[in-house]
Amino acid sequence: MPRWDPEAKERLRAAALELFAERGYDNATVAQITERAGLTRRTFSRYFADKRDVLFAGSEQLPDAMADAVRRADPALPPFQALLAALVDAGDLFAGLVSHAAQRRAIIASSPELQERERTKLAAVTEAVVEALRERGANESSAKMLAQVGITVFHTAFERWAEHPEGADFAARVREAAAELAAHLTP
Amino acid sequence: MPRWDPEAKERLRAAALELFAERGYDNATVAQITERAGLTRRTFSRYFADKRDVLFAGSEQLPDAMADAVRRADPALPPFQALLAALVDAGDLFAGLVSHAAQRRAIIASSPELQERERTKLAAVTEAVVEALRERGANESSAKMLAQVGITVFHTAFERWAEHPEGADFAARVREAAAELAAHLTP
Repeated sequence: MPRWDPEAKERLRAAALELFAERGYDNATVAQITERAGLTRRTFSRYFADKRDVLFAGSEQLPDAMADAVRRADPALPPFQALLAALVDAGDLFAGLVSHAAQRRAIIASSPELQERERTKLAAVTEAVVEALRERGANESSAKMLAQVGITVFHTAFERWAEHPEGADFAARVREAAAELAAHLTP
Repeated sequence: MPRWDPEAKERLRAAALELFAERGYDNATVAQITERAGLTRRTFSRYFADKRDVLFAGSEQLPDAMADAVRRADPALPPFQALLAALVDAGDLFAGLVSHAAQRRAIIASSPELQERERTKLAAVTEAVVEALRERGANESSAKMLAQVGITVFHTAFERWAEHPEGADFAARVREAAAELAAHLTP
């Protein structure tokens, strides 16, 4: 087993998601995950802190990644358009997750603890995006509203993309969700 | 002291918010709250389960109240317009809270535990609204997006109303926030 094995992480993730689905998140153990993946506990610890981390690994980078994408967007764009561009940009970060998205969502929906963790994650992303939108000139109240709506559009687009990965790409899903929302908002 | 005293609840709430602001939420005790309000622990227990409940009392009724308001809205209205009408309707429930809104928000912002409780509360409201929007014919993905955006509009309108209660009324704030959002969404 090489010390750094990009496939090991993926095997552990797949094994964990299978076990969570079969036995329930609370009943699955790290020992079962490593056994199913045919890997050691030491290898598991190289990639994940604990079983919950399998579902949230990398999410601590999300707030900065999303805020930086907002900062990098064309300075000529008004705030929400800059945010949409950033969401599309950031979508590349998630391309690797799309194959597990439906499984992951079902597991999170099964556990209040995981739902709370997911909300905390989204709140941190929202807060970082608010800051970036304020730097682009939005006042605090508008920045908060737009950041929350942007995250909602992102989430909607991601779920639709994950459900039909053979259909439109993520960028098109973001534009489609934003356009759908705009149509609903206009009486 | 009469057995049912509508002012007692209000005095306890005011005393609690003062103490949370002065000493920090974690350091304030129910004993201090009742002492400041000049009331007994028994009276406190008539209105609130514990000190956290002072900030969230009544919130268990919110999901049903909001969903029912969506169901009652004019059947001719398309989903998001029905939701806006419901938000305005439900705003009356919150009129009594507006005087404490800024204080309450600052206290919640000071504590990760309270922020998490607030997010759980909003998630429960969102879920109930999704159900009501689905009954009005929205598909699940759209209903989720619209419910989240509606709650965001509600929150934005409520904060603006609370910040300048002498200004526009809540209904006008909801329409203003929705119109502002629509303008941002249209490139």
